[in-house]
Amino acid sequence: MKSGLYETLERIAVTIESRKGGEAQKSYVAMLLAGDEDAILKKIGEEATETVLAAKGGDRLHLVREIADLWFHSMILLARHGLGPGDVLAELHRREGIPGLDEKAARKKK
Amino acid sequence: MKSGLYETLERIAVTIESRKGGEAQKSYVAMLLAGDEDAILKKIGEEATETVLAAKGGDRLHLVREIADLWFHSMILLARHGLGPGDVLAELHRREGIPGLDEKAARKKK
Amino acid sequence: MKSGLYETLERIAVTIESRKGGEAQKSYVAMLLAGDEDAILKKIGEEATETVLAAKGGDRLHLVREIADLWFHSMILLARHGLGPGDVLAELHRREGIPGLDEKAARKKK
Amino acid sequence: MKSGLYETLERIAVTIESRKGGEAQKSYVAMLLAGDEDAILKKIGEEATETVLAAKGGDRLHLVREIADLWFHSMILLARHGLGPGDVLAELHRREGIPGLDEKAARKKK
Repeated sequence: MKSGLYETLERIAVTIESRKGGEAQKSYVAMLLAGDEDAILKKIGEEATETVLAAKGGDRLHLVREIADLWFHSMILLARHGLGPGDVLAELHRREGIPGLDEKAARKKK
Repeated sequence: MKSGLYETLERIAVTIESRKGGEAQKSYVAMLLAGDEDAILKKIGEEATETVLAAKGGDRLHLVREIADLWFHSMILLARHGLGPGDVLAELHRREGIPGLDEKAARKKK
Repeated sequence: MKSGLYETLERIAVTIESRKGGEAQKSYVAMLLAGDEDAILKKIGEEATETVLAAKGGDRLHLVREIADLWFHSMILLARHGLGPGDVLAELHRREGIPGLDEKAARKKK
Repeated sequence: MKSGLYETLERIAVTIESRKGGEAQKSYVAMLLAGDEDAILKKIGEEATETVLAAKGGDRLHLVREIADLWFHSMILLARHGLGPGDVLAELHRREGIPGLDEKAARKKK
């Protein structure tokens, strides 16, 4: 991964935070932060379905864009709950320690 | 974000790659990499619904875990297509340049 | 449509109702009626994703089965809320009157 | 269920069929029948998420409307594949015979 990309998530999180209290008419993010939470939750559902369809379509660039949309809207949802991508990375990091990446499977079987 | 967390995504991507060709019986990731793609796509749909339900439930730790699941399974899907989280970050970074974070809204309106 | 099929939805609704208060260990329906509502809502999300994947797969029998699963689980959800398929049919019938079947589109545009 | 409601599904299916080859600009159904299948599949995903959110919201009328949307779009998808609600009812009827309504659970366990 190119140097600098790491910080992208954090910069985006900072920008999302800066939209809090902004004018919903001017900013898509401000609208999703301020309005009924169901609007951002519908977007999560939509982007997941679009990710599934992009994978079936086989266009890699399309797939990357849909997953970027999914992660971006996840970050808006996190911001609404006072959370950020660092919390997700910390959770993923926590799981690295256990039985490697397959902790999830193990957890599910319990 | 704590130093070191940045690299979590890359380390996880490397671990996912290392599971390619592994035994599906021993590794959840190897199973999702090797089997019918529909299995990982169903997981994307499931984790999105679980994210929605966790947000409605209001437990922040639960929400973080579900989004971590969603991102993790997204990375397995990316790996199946020869892609990784760096491609998603590059796409998010590309959007930063345009009209800030709200490029998506602008793109949708076209 | 063959005569008798019409009544299938009503018979299923009656059977679902009869499972209320039943033993969750013995009956899948009783379990979904009695437990945390999130369990049935996850099933709605899962069956929708499986419907999407079945359509992409192109196997018509598979598609019919997934939509049957989706409608069946919708009926369990309805029953949890004191509703049944007749309420859904009444709503669909109500829409027939307006600008034919395309009322939905008109409603969305308002 | 009131007499006459049974036939609603069949009437709707006939109306959907009549939209085949119609002008997409004039009819929402004609547009979903004629265009890229992904458009109707996205609707299935959206309506499922909206059903989940309506259930969490607790407004029964809202829930009925969302499930009506979900069933209606399922019928458009069926029509694209040369199928109709009678096929779904026949599948549900077939399952009635086996171990009652809980056949699905038994089938899943196999």
